[in-house]
Amino acid sequence: MSSVPTRALRGALIVTQDEKRTVLRGDVLIADGKIAEVGKSLPQKADVEVDAHRMLVAPGFINLHTHVANTLLRGVADDLDFGGFLEKMFSYDAKRTEADIEVGALLGGAEMLLGGTTTYLDMYYGMDAVGRASERLGIRSFLGWAVLDAQFTTQKGIPVDNAREFMGRWKNHELVTPLPAPQGVYVVSEETWLKTKELADQKRSLVHYHLSETLKEVEDHVGKHGLRPVEWLEKIGFLGPGQIAAHSVWLKNNEIALMAQRKVAAAHCPSSNMKLASGGGGLCPVTELRAQGAVVGIGTDSSTSSNTLSMLRLTHLTGLAHKHARHDPKSLPAQVLLDMATREGARALGQEGFLGTIVPGAAADLVLYDMAHPSLAPVDTASAVANLVYSANEGAVNSVFVGGRPVVDRGRLAGLGDEELEKIALSPPLR
Amino acid sequence: MSSVPTRALRGALIVTQDEKRTVLRGDVLIADGKIAEVGKSLPQKADVEVDAHRMLVAPGFINLHTHVANTLLRGVADDLDFGGFLEKMFSYDAKRTEADIEVGALLGGAEMLLGGTTTYLDMYYGMDAVGRASERLGIRSFLGWAVLDAQFTTQKGIPVDNAREFMGRWKNHELVTPLPAPQGVYVVSEETWLKTKELADQKRSLVHYHLSETLKEVEDHVGKHGLRPVEWLEKIGFLGPGQIAAHSVWLKNNEIALMAQRKVAAAHCPSSNMKLASGGGGLCPVTELRAQGAVVGIGTDSSTSSNTLSMLRLTHLTGLAHKHARHDPKSLPAQVLLDMATREGARALGQEGFLGTIVPGAAADLVLYDMAHPSLAPVDTASAVANLVYSANEGAVNSVFVGGRPVVDRGRLAGLGDEELEKIALSPPLR
Repeated sequence: MSSVPTRALRGALIVTQDEKRTVLRGDVLIADGKIAEVGKSLPQKADVEVDAHRMLVAPGFINLHTHVANTLLRGVADDLDFGGFLEKMFSYDAKRTEADIEVGALLGGAEMLLGGTTTYLDMYYGMDAVGRASERLGIRSFLGWAVLDAQFTTQKGIPVDNAREFMGRWKNHELVTPLPAPQGVYVVSEETWLKTKELADQKRSLVHYHLSETLKEVEDHVGKHGLRPVEWLEKIGFLGPGQIAAHSVWLKNNEIALMAQRKVAAAHCPSSNMKLASGGGGLCPVTELRAQGAVVGIGTDSSTSSNTLSMLRLTHLTGLAHKHARHDPKSLPAQVLLDMATREGARALGQEGFLGTIVPGAAADLVLYDMAHPSLAPVDTASAVANLVYSANEGAVNSVFVGGRPVVDRGRLAGLGDEELEKIALSPPLR
Repeated sequence: MSSVPTRALRGALIVTQDEKRTVLRGDVLIADGKIAEVGKSLPQKADVEVDAHRMLVAPGFINLHTHVANTLLRGVADDLDFGGFLEKMFSYDAKRTEADIEVGALLGGAEMLLGGTTTYLDMYYGMDAVGRASERLGIRSFLGWAVLDAQFTTQKGIPVDNAREFMGRWKNHELVTPLPAPQGVYVVSEETWLKTKELADQKRSLVHYHLSETLKEVEDHVGKHGLRPVEWLEKIGFLGPGQIAAHSVWLKNNEIALMAQRKVAAAHCPSSNMKLASGGGGLCPVTELRAQGAVVGIGTDSSTSSNTLSMLRLTHLTGLAHKHARHDPKSLPAQVLLDMATREGARALGQEGFLGTIVPGAAADLVLYDMAHPSLAPVDTASAVANLVYSANEGAVNSVFVGGRPVVDRGRLAGLGDEELEKIALSPPLR
């Protein structure tokens, strides 16, 4: 880390997302990839001094559920029902190579960085390619190697051991954190759920899985086991801290209570659920989960279902969808929405105080937004959070840092040159 | 117009939005501010030859309802109920000057252009300032001068004559089209509605108004007149072609039929309605209106209620909101959504064949999106419409033309320099 110069951002409007949600005009000092200090006019000199008086500085977004490899398949499966959508996906899965996965991960990672997302949680197979792409782009990633049992699917099974080996290969990496990712109750046996948990306990890792995305999935499970998915996962002794359940749409009150009690976090994916109208137009019960003390972050899901990986857009959408559904303009106010997209995502990943916040000791995962960009302007201390959540778009993103390293500078990616980007974007494989 | 050089965009992916919704690889020829020709490899030479092989070219978006002046007030009235929101707005209206309105219109117009919107329909007072700002930016605008009767409000009344005078001042302007805009049934008397219609008939102008945005507005009207707003406007003889009714949320089947029959267009404003949860969480019945043959376009509403003026985001949101509400992933497919945001907006404005489409004779109101931008990539003929509607964000906007003139070039506005933009964005009046 000593190769990263110290850096001072001077005179910025800083949305700290600290405990008190302080918004202030001042400086941010970055050293060793971390926030060294935040304050009004810090006296220390840095290797690189940046005049940031035009910049709003905020923590990078945390995208709590996606499958970046699918970015390669954007636009191939739209306006279909869930069954037709999955069929289309499986047809591509059958012919996809690890090189294809890497290209998808480069495009998806690039989209996220350019939109102010500095961390993402992913689930797929062939995740070494995703790790390489993330490392190259300089984006922080939590990569779940999918686990599923062959007997439940027309696809090939993926044993827990594959996840274990993947975790061995990426152990103690600065930016890439490996984990196992059982796909969902419809394709994973009790034995495999428990083996996954054992692996995660052994390695002290997170576990990521899909949960109750469609009504059919829940009804099928009840038909087979007499219990709803969360009830069943509790009964087999699976639920526990360090788990992130994507979607979490179809939850009854007792399941909400169980998730809160077992400290299972939810990754709410509104664009995917709304676009696929998942099994009857449900939405993750964000307010109810939060009321019980459960952590709820926001995920984009993949480019085939979502189709955007924009956390700016998804954070806004989360607010709109829930205010609308609850007939209450005061529900999920801007500050809560920004919390979900930053601090709460960090809590879900066990990174409270390190990610999603600008405080001394936290990773310097920062986004500089141009306050003169008309999608963010006019903005002041009082409106900073609302304007970030309800109006700022990708045009306002000036630069992005991850672990103190500049990864985006005015639309340019440090890790992927324009020529190569053009090549993979305009002549992609699999299309 | 002779000062505008002819221009050829070569080798682009063109989303023509013509009658057949042709998407092709080819050239666009622009002369005299209009599309001269579209085709595979056009032989004609132009004054300016543009290599557009990396570009997706599409018609600019048409924002069918906003109040750009309010861009100055972004972030001052969030997470409030409708009453609290209006109160906040009125407090600013009381002290706003025409200079303030111009600054708001510059910021709002800039945001729209940078996001690929080339035409907007607005409603406000002091509209000369909005006209000047639009003219300066080079954005096409349809500007409604608000009309309301003092006896219904704590605000000052605005007589029809003010609208008439405004229309005289901007007669036959290339980019600015003036019209009268009665604010809504809650503040406009029968006599004033009819005087407005008379003015519009005389001048062959459009009329823009708010309609059935909140349940309270409808219930109050029924209490007062025994009729719902659309029934009442029909009864007094107001409804007719050339009218654009913003919001149109709370409509019964007979009102939907009346709007279709009288050729009244609706401007659907989902972000505003969802954020304010307008009187009980309704949404404009887009599918039902379209099924009856009514025209429905998309509007952002203003930066105080919406808060974004991004038509990319709003077009996407329209799809998500309706698929979700109808529990049907196939409803409002990508092509219909793009139609609403372009061709249907143009029809509502009486500009069918001239705006919202890339065909010979149409205005050269075009957006060039960079196909190598990761929010749009990978994109091909088959996925062009879906990727534009469901994933492209403002970062992908490379350049924008209105009437053949370049108004945006890689984030720079032709009509507003960076220094002045910084000044009004960072030191705005009224804040």
